[in-house]
Amino acid sequence: MTPEPVELAKAYRLINHGPTVLVSSAHGGRRNVMAAAWNMALDFTPAKVCVVIDKTTFSRGLIEASGEFVLNVPARAQAAQVLAMGRVSGRDGDKFDALDLPTLPAAKVAAPLLAGCLGWLECRVIPEPHNQQAYDLFIGEVIAAWADPRAFTKGHWRAEAPPSLHYIAGGAFFATGEAFEVAG
Amino acid sequence: MTPEPVELAKAYRLINHGPTVLVSSAHGGRRNVMAAAWNMALDFTPAKVCVVIDKTTFSRGLIEASGEFVLNVPARAQAAQVLAMGRVSGRDGDKFDALDLPTLPAAKVAAPLLAGCLGWLECRVIPEPHNQQAYDLFIGEVIAAWADPRAFTKGHWRAEAPPSLHYIAGGAFFATGEAFEVAG
Repeated sequence: MTPEPVELAKAYRLINHGPTVLVSSAHGGRRNVMAAAWNMALDFTPAKVCVVIDKTTFSRGLIEASGEFVLNVPARAQAAQVLAMGRVSGRDGDKFDALDLPTLPAAKVAAPLLAGCLGWLECRVIPEPHNQQAYDLFIGEVIAAWADPRAFTKGHWRAEAPPSLHYIAGGAFFATGEAFEVAG
Repeated sequence: MTPEPVELAKAYRLINHGPTVLVSSAHGGRRNVMAAAWNMALDFTPAKVCVVIDKTTFSRGLIEASGEFVLNVPARAQAAQVLAMGRVSGRDGDKFDALDLPTLPAAKVAAPLLAGCLGWLECRVIPEPHNQQAYDLFIGEVIAAWADPRAFTKGHWRAEAPPSLHYIAGGAFFATGEAFEVAG
């Protein structure tokens, strides 16, 4: 599978349905990945996103130091990996190695793309120190976006896309369900 | 159906799976409701949420003037109503009357709760003028929360809860799919 570029103005559609994402980051030879249910699109163009990154996480330091992150949209098949990521800290060793997570290189940021995901949004932090300090809230501009063309192509989710993940709490998820249209 | 109170520390679970919400608001004898796919939880306790409210909307003025809003979590059965809300403006007349939308009174805010939804989060705006102006981004503290106990009870979604809605674009939605647990 070769990721297909997603037009930046359509990148919001990778997360508009509210999936839990994985945030990957890298700085100074270290890298990490963590799950984040608290994410949303913020603008169409320039494309922007919000994500909450707690101060206690190892990822927080990598993101603040590099000014970059990637939102990876995992498939339902990756649910056990997503939970496993929360049971170890990147401080104790490379989480990709420990959990045997294959990666792909990003185009514009140092953070890796996690293989097997449905879509990827490469982001540059728009510094907002008050939001970051008071709310752990990070705003990013999407500077490149990609999708597995078997799931999302030419700006649209395919009807036969594998489900993504919607975290509830305590190891419980919803899968993305049926796609449908309402006449306009 | 009598809405069941939701413990504020568990209120995030009503939106943690990324549903599209309906934002209701009221001020000075006017009221309105609009759909917002761009919403997320921001904190557990005190419970906080984020939502994007565009400057062009009638709701924006009501929310800024009242300092309050409600996030309503609609069921899949309300998808046609959700789209219909986007086709008219509250400026042109009361949208609840025009679309025949029944309401319930909120406990702590003037904005109404839309009947038929799965959950409701009554919120007080935490004023952040820069976020509101630069990003149309509103932060709210959840001051009361409710759920239809047939969908969500005692802090948990029921396995048999009716699906909620996850908007994509252009009249296309995903329904919430199967609930499942990954062993911890």
